[in-house]
Amino acid sequence: MNTALQQLIQQVSDKQLDMIYIDDPNLIGYLTGFESNPHERVLALFVLKDSVFLFTPFLEASEARAQSSIEEIISYKDEENPWKIISKQLNRYNQSFETIGLVENQLTVDRYKQLLAMTNPEQTIDISSMIQEIQLIKSDDELSKMKTAGKMADRALEIGMSALKVGISEQEVVAEIEYELRKLGISEMSFQTMVLFGDHVGSPHGNPGSRKLKANELVLFDLGVVADGYTSDVTRTVAFGDISEELKQVYNIVLKAQQTAQAAVRPGITTGELDQIARSIIEEAGYGEYFTHRLGHGLGKTVHEFPSLSKGSSMVVQEGMCFSLEPGIYIENQVGVRIEDCVYVTADGCESFTHTPKTLITI
Amino acid sequence: MNTALQQLIQQVSDKQLDMIYIDDPNLIGYLTGFESNPHERVLALFVLKDSVFLFTPFLEASEARAQSSIEEIISYKDEENPWKIISKQLNRYNQSFETIGLVENQLTVDRYKQLLAMTNPEQTIDISSMIQEIQLIKSDDELSKMKTAGKMADRALEIGMSALKVGISEQEVVAEIEYELRKLGISEMSFQTMVLFGDHVGSPHGNPGSRKLKANELVLFDLGVVADGYTSDVTRTVAFGDISEELKQVYNIVLKAQQTAQAAVRPGITTGELDQIARSIIEEAGYGEYFTHRLGHGLGKTVHEFPSLSKGSSMVVQEGMCFSLEPGIYIENQVGVRIEDCVYVTADGCESFTHTPKTLITI
Repeated sequence: MNTALQQLIQQVSDKQLDMIYIDDPNLIGYLTGFESNPHERVLALFVLKDSVFLFTPFLEASEARAQSSIEEIISYKDEENPWKIISKQLNRYNQSFETIGLVENQLTVDRYKQLLAMTNPEQTIDISSMIQEIQLIKSDDELSKMKTAGKMADRALEIGMSALKVGISEQEVVAEIEYELRKLGISEMSFQTMVLFGDHVGSPHGNPGSRKLKANELVLFDLGVVADGYTSDVTRTVAFGDISEELKQVYNIVLKAQQTAQAAVRPGITTGELDQIARSIIEEAGYGEYFTHRLGHGLGKTVHEFPSLSKGSSMVVQEGMCFSLEPGIYIENQVGVRIEDCVYVTADGCESFTHTPKTLITI
Repeated sequence: MNTALQQLIQQVSDKQLDMIYIDDPNLIGYLTGFESNPHERVLALFVLKDSVFLFTPFLEASEARAQSSIEEIISYKDEENPWKIISKQLNRYNQSFETIGLVENQLTVDRYKQLLAMTNPEQTIDISSMIQEIQLIKSDDELSKMKTAGKMADRALEIGMSALKVGISEQEVVAEIEYELRKLGISEMSFQTMVLFGDHVGSPHGNPGSRKLKANELVLFDLGVVADGYTSDVTRTVAFGDISEELKQVYNIVLKAQQTAQAAVRPGITTGELDQIARSIIEEAGYGEYFTHRLGHGLGKTVHEFPSLSKGSSMVVQEGMCFSLEPGIYIENQVGVRIEDCVYVTADGCESFTHTPKTLITI
């Protein structure tokens, strides 16, 4: 049984909960080792006072047995009502369910109502932040998977940069990157790979399209690789040929913001202070209004988890946290530069998961 | 404004609702034309008595303006509390919110509680099935996108079949398929492309890995392409070289089940009857226990929506519905065969979105 699940079981006892119900597939993967996508079918982990069981669609039961650390697997067939089977199973424990812990930022209202009708609790407790806290500090095993994911992200950037040539489209570069990664055994990206050229780079959430690469423009790569269930996330903006002095200047402002923030990461500083360090550099250079998003976000099993590095956020940075540092400057249809590394916090600073150089690369 | 949103607005009036709240990104894409992935940020559509507004993260606001049919776009920055801004916006309408419609199978409990605290309604109404009904019957425009998605799925099968050779791995075949599709402008698959060889085919939800292709074994492709926001889904099992008479026999049982069910599709029949038609053919051939899942599922914007074609389901088939017909026989670590087409229901039968031959293809 993994440490995270042990911590959760401890919480059931500490907080005098009668049951915890979790049905987010990613979280179940995190807690049990069983990764799956049940779509609309019910896949749920029940942590009771003295027992734990995993409820799965029949189709997934044998894989759940093979992959998960949970001994008791209960399953249901497509033509059965899952809630009836869950109810029958819960009755077997001969205990009451007065206080139930729920992950309210993941649980849907229809299932919430099903559960309430079935167990009739006196109170429900939102365990979202409890889960976020457990996920916040990564174990050595998790860090090791994230380092692998980071290495593969560096490899992806390398592939992407070598693919650049006049006339290739954004989509074609994405195709090259993902093709080579697949052949290296990568089956999933952290999110849709972003490759943007020239004026497209000005949109912080743009989609790669048929825009073809011209000489002397910027190229932005924002991508991540999933390795063993853990994500990476990296952004580099590179020059394809000569770019204007103004673009170089913008690049160097973003670089300074990124590097200064990264150098400031250490246990004890707050996430809001880190955001402010990067933001004030961009503001002082006169581009404050064009840094339109937060400095960064946590990552691990998913690419958007705690902490959030935004203006005024007061979370204190601790050893073992993992997050992105990704300042950017975007002027729509004109310029766009973003530089991002994800780091893990050490006893006195941080280490990056990715190592592709950050000084302006010219191809 | 598209027909689906018009229908929803009509429902607000018919059901005397004061507000409908929707925050599922896919559903917002369906109703407004604005496709995005806001991750944990709040993206929500509010349909009020006399007005509609879309609430987006600041980063997405300009794209929402460009892509969506909604005139009023309200946005919030990362450092702002989205619920405060929503509350302020709702106050501007000077109306009460006694009855609120919610998509309870998508809405999370934390947001549900936020909304309730903000609007203090007398009652909430689950509009999940209202939404499912609106989505159930596809418009000509939707069918046309799904036909394109189907054509691309046929193309994907063609690419996959040509890639087969002794020694290639499952993952490498996936790489070839997705690489060629990317170059054709496809940026998203309906789900993780499945290519399984030999004994792997025995797992209905297997994952492609490093297993290498040998002569004289079965290969299963299960894949789908997203075109213009609409999905396709197709499965073919092909023979790479000579396969045993027993495998051929299993193949032909599945084929008969698939074709007989497909020939029976017409308005008026129930989804449970269709499941039974396929199931009884497999049962009579003695493989009933190895057809371990339902016959099929609806598809459209996503690959798992209504109707569900399972044992005993009583939904009456209507013109314009779209669903999969995908019987299979799986004996773990031994054989596996599944054949799937997705169809749309016409006035007197159905048409398939995919046209790759179904009689056993030998490569």
